Amino acid sequence: MSTLKREEYIPHLAYDSVIFGFSGEKLKILLIEYHKTGWLALPGGFVKIHEPLDEAVKRGLRERTSLHDIYLEQFYTFGSLERNKPEIMRKIMASQEKVVPEDHWLFERFVSVGYYALIDYEKVEPRPDALSDSISWYDVDSVPDLLFDHNFIVQKALEHLRTHLDQKLLSVNLLPERFTMKELQQVYEAILGENLNRANFQRKMLSLGILERHEKLYSGGSHKAPYLYSFLK
Amino acid sequence: MSTLKREEYIPHLAYDSVIFGFSGEKLKILLIEYHKTGWLALPGGFVKIHEPLDEAVKRGLRERTSLHDIYLEQFYTFGSLERNKPEIMRKIMASQEKVVPEDHWLFERFVSVGYYALIDYEKVEPRPDALSDSISWYDVDSVPDLLFDHNFIVQKALEHLRTHLDQKLLSVNLLPERFTMKELQQVYEAILGENLNRANFQRKMLSLGILERHEKLYSGGSHKAPYLYSFLK
Repeated sequence: MSTLKREEYIPHLAYDSVIFGFSGEKLKILLIEYHKTGWLALPGGFVKIHEPLDEAVKRGLRERTSLHDIYLEQFYTFGSLERNKPEIMRKIMASQEKVVPEDHWLFERFVSVGYYALIDYEKVEPRPDALSDSISWYDVDSVPDLLFDHNFIVQKALEHLRTHLDQKLLSVNLLPERFTMKELQQVYEAILGENLNRANFQRKMLSLGILERHEKLYSGGSHKAPYLYSFLK
Repeated sequence: MSTLKREEYIPHLAYDSVIFGFSGEKLKILLIEYHKTGWLALPGGFVKIHEPLDEAVKRGLRERTSLHDIYLEQFYTFGSLERNKPEIMRKIMASQEKVVPEDHWLFERFVSVGYYALIDYEKVEPRPDALSDSISWYDVDSVPDLLFDHNFIVQKALEHLRTHLDQKLLSVNLLPERFTMKELQQVYEAILGENLNRANFQRKMLSLGILERHEKLYSGGSHKAPYLYSFLK
């Protein structure tokens, strides 16, 4: 962080990434833990003066988590005054034995653009950067206390993911190429965090026009073989 | 604009407001025309150093259009490099006979947060500010060339409005307290810009659980009196 020269970055502007991970059972999010303080936060960063916002977010995620080729989507920009807590920034800097001036630009107010992604956490291997002690997946059901307004940012991202789940699932490989309606319902239930009525779910999914029906999945003697589906390209 | 002192505002950060107007027939947007140049743009502005982002947007809309008590919703933050066109800013300043230094902060790169609203344009009376020649409603079907990336911003806002129309209509009084399914369909068709199948539309609207059904609308001898509906509070 010693290399963060004010003139290289847009002042007062940050971003935070909410990386949702799913792999058949539970929805999780990726959090970093800061050296020595034990504080948890979303991976975030700053935008260079001549860097497109989207590029900055991709670069930041790569640098801080070693994840790359992740499709990040913007969902909300956080611009309240309450979100600014310079004293926390001071403690983080102090814990890293950095000597910084009282009026360092990191202590100023920041507006933060939130991005999120949904990935299969079994297919990636995040690694912490020099700023962070560790980086781990946490259950969405029990997110611990996070720095700044990051719990609120997670909440907003979760609302967005749940509202746009139909579209989101189309672009993510969380299911095998061909799947049953039951498997699809399990993904929805895990991400929405609620149980769904089987008949209503099937009716809704078929009405969306995003599924293609294939042959039945014969598994032997059963006469109740379910149809297989795939997402329309 | 001569009062825009750099130290009072967050540098590199702007906002733009897309105000959609509807009043029974056509969807329109509100555009301002700049003095002398004839250039059209969305009403926008800057965020003060100690001002919440949402407040800045409300203040700006009030100052530039005289509209107040408008419920603005954030939809996207625009952060590409291509959107920056300092030469246009220079011409606007020049057209107003302002003498500003070559390196004025208005000529720097800006990231802009987009907000939108849907209102009944017959219930408001926008008035231009000192920067603007005039302020008028334009058909969404035929938006003229706008400054910067404002045509793209309008397009993004329109996508957002159309995707979230069910929710949006709940909070806006574009219909009488009680209305028929046909009247509701006309609003959807005008805003979506397409014709809808009557039976599918009715089925979808009833399945959303946002309508309350009342008595039939008897208008005389007809036996085909339609039901009246209202939005659930």
